[in-house]
Amino acid sequence: MLRVAVVGATGLVGSQMMAILEERSFPVAELVPVASERSAGKRVSFRGEEVEVRVVSEEVFEGVDLALFSAGSSVSRRWAPVAVSRGAVVVDNSSAWRMDPKVPLVVPEINGDDLSWHSGIIANPNCATVQTLMALYPLHRRFGLVRFFASTYQSVSGTGARALEELRIGALSYLDGRSWSGGVYPHPIAFNLIPEIGPFRDDGYSEEELKMVNESRKIMGLPDLQVDCTTVRVPVFRGHSVSVFAFFQREVDVEEARGVLSSFPGVKVVDDPSSHLYPMPMDAAGRDEVFVGRIRRSLADPRGLALWVVSDNVRKGAALNAVQISEKLLEMGLLRRA
Amino acid sequence: MLRVAVVGATGLVGSQMMAILEERSFPVAELVPVASERSAGKRVSFRGEEVEVRVVSEEVFEGVDLALFSAGSSVSRRWAPVAVSRGAVVVDNSSAWRMDPKVPLVVPEINGDDLSWHSGIIANPNCATVQTLMALYPLHRRFGLVRFFASTYQSVSGTGARALEELRIGALSYLDGRSWSGGVYPHPIAFNLIPEIGPFRDDGYSEEELKMVNESRKIMGLPDLQVDCTTVRVPVFRGHSVSVFAFFQREVDVEEARGVLSSFPGVKVVDDPSSHLYPMPMDAAGRDEVFVGRIRRSLADPRGLALWVVSDNVRKGAALNAVQISEKLLEMGLLRRA
Repeated sequence: MLRVAVVGATGLVGSQMMAILEERSFPVAELVPVASERSAGKRVSFRGEEVEVRVVSEEVFEGVDLALFSAGSSVSRRWAPVAVSRGAVVVDNSSAWRMDPKVPLVVPEINGDDLSWHSGIIANPNCATVQTLMALYPLHRRFGLVRFFASTYQSVSGTGARALEELRIGALSYLDGRSWSGGVYPHPIAFNLIPEIGPFRDDGYSEEELKMVNESRKIMGLPDLQVDCTTVRVPVFRGHSVSVFAFFQREVDVEEARGVLSSFPGVKVVDDPSSHLYPMPMDAAGRDEVFVGRIRRSLADPRGLALWVVSDNVRKGAALNAVQISEKLLEMGLLRRA
Repeated sequence: MLRVAVVGATGLVGSQMMAILEERSFPVAELVPVASERSAGKRVSFRGEEVEVRVVSEEVFEGVDLALFSAGSSVSRRWAPVAVSRGAVVVDNSSAWRMDPKVPLVVPEINGDDLSWHSGIIANPNCATVQTLMALYPLHRRFGLVRFFASTYQSVSGTGARALEELRIGALSYLDGRSWSGGVYPHPIAFNLIPEIGPFRDDGYSEEELKMVNESRKIMGLPDLQVDCTTVRVPVFRGHSVSVFAFFQREVDVEEARGVLSSFPGVKVVDDPSSHLYPMPMDAAGRDEVFVGRIRRSLADPRGLALWVVSDNVRKGAALNAVQISEKLLEMGLLRRA
């Protein structure tokens, strides 16, 4: 049994991490919910008990075996090394350590083996990237992935709890004839689309778009993989969707692709469009699987496939994947470094 | 001055056609609003006057010089030839005649010259295709278009007036804790995404996706153009958005691309993402321009560009383009065939 800290325990992903630890009966001896000063005095619920949230400090990591971080990059940069120095293994949901060559970036179904070379911190990938790769990796093993194009349709839950309110109140305001923005996004999100996720570089790419490129290469171990990506925020509460066009070394067969996807753990193929069956965020919210549908061969290239990939970004895109990493660490005997 | 019939006058696009004829002072001597039996007795407003809607029949086309059709494919297939036989020129917004080799399919800024060979019917292209090509065509002239990938984010107004209500009521119901679908779409559209627009072929492609492929080739006169497309309905009232990755014969330069786009009539570049300036459906609704932004060079290929293209699908995607075709016909002296 382990002492497990959740840093960012009052946030959307942190809450979900605790719920998933409980759901999956992760062997938690003691839960240590950690948050910033703002949450001092708050309580969170775990296995039917109320646990007081502790303000982040060196001391909260004393005796902690596993620390799940989801409190933003600056908190992770500051405190993850502290947790490690106190003996904890850190699974970090922020982007702080993802591209550090000494830090494994892991989707357990794809590159769980990379956990073997961790040195304290393991990075949990970007939400949109996780689900895209869950669909592409099994296809890669069969056909050899060369290039992909991704256009994302990302829900507001990717931004956090305040964004859910912003969409809810924004929608009511709009329907009431008023325009409203709560300040989480630079423009109203209700009944609108915002093609901005994260800060922009000088060349016009956003950080979210570069995550798809760089994290895909690192996770799949394909440094030459060619990726183009446009990321867009859509007025959906929960569940990210990605339109993918993927190109392979070999000619693809749609039936074979469906078979390869269906037999990959964590993927569910929903693909009978004439019966109106395809993945939708409405159906994916609250589910663990990555749903793949609209599987077609490229009209222009027999080595290409079009896919539509939907998943609950808070679960497989964040909290679930972090807990799965933790389970895999346990299974590999890698959790206690001391 | 012309006698102008609008078939489908009580629909979303038909109403917009009449409004745009009025706005642009199209030389209408008499407006003949036409609709199905269901709309018998209704009145529409034109230039401040109430005009009674006539039920479609051979007689309503008597003496009509120009008939704008937007009442669905079956109405167009049945009645457009009748209107032509009575001496009218038909601009048809349905998909009925678009791929007929004897029918020009026209975006005036791109291939207005194709109007010269019309023989009574001119087809107005699919909404998502119009705006995508308004962005791609000027780039094609400079760099030579070879291939493009489009993922669409299409608003409910593309489906018609009932779909606007379905989104409105669906959103209120959802926020009230109830799931609701009014039957226009096979699933709730509020706070959801539906990757189904039009019927599906056996190979998994939808009609809407094939329109993007086939109409693009015909309008730009590029029979070998390679196109891949995924079309998705999003919970936006008005304004379609398209994420495009386009590849050219020659290496592209982003500044040159912006210049080429800015100087093309009907296109407006909105592209300063660090200042949160990019096209959004919220800003495009009610506007005539096609807005292009997020212009970046492909990360993988110096001959590629990523673009984000937004336009009011009811205006440039439908009613405005039909009126612009009519204006061009007048200008070319092609309206009166008799």
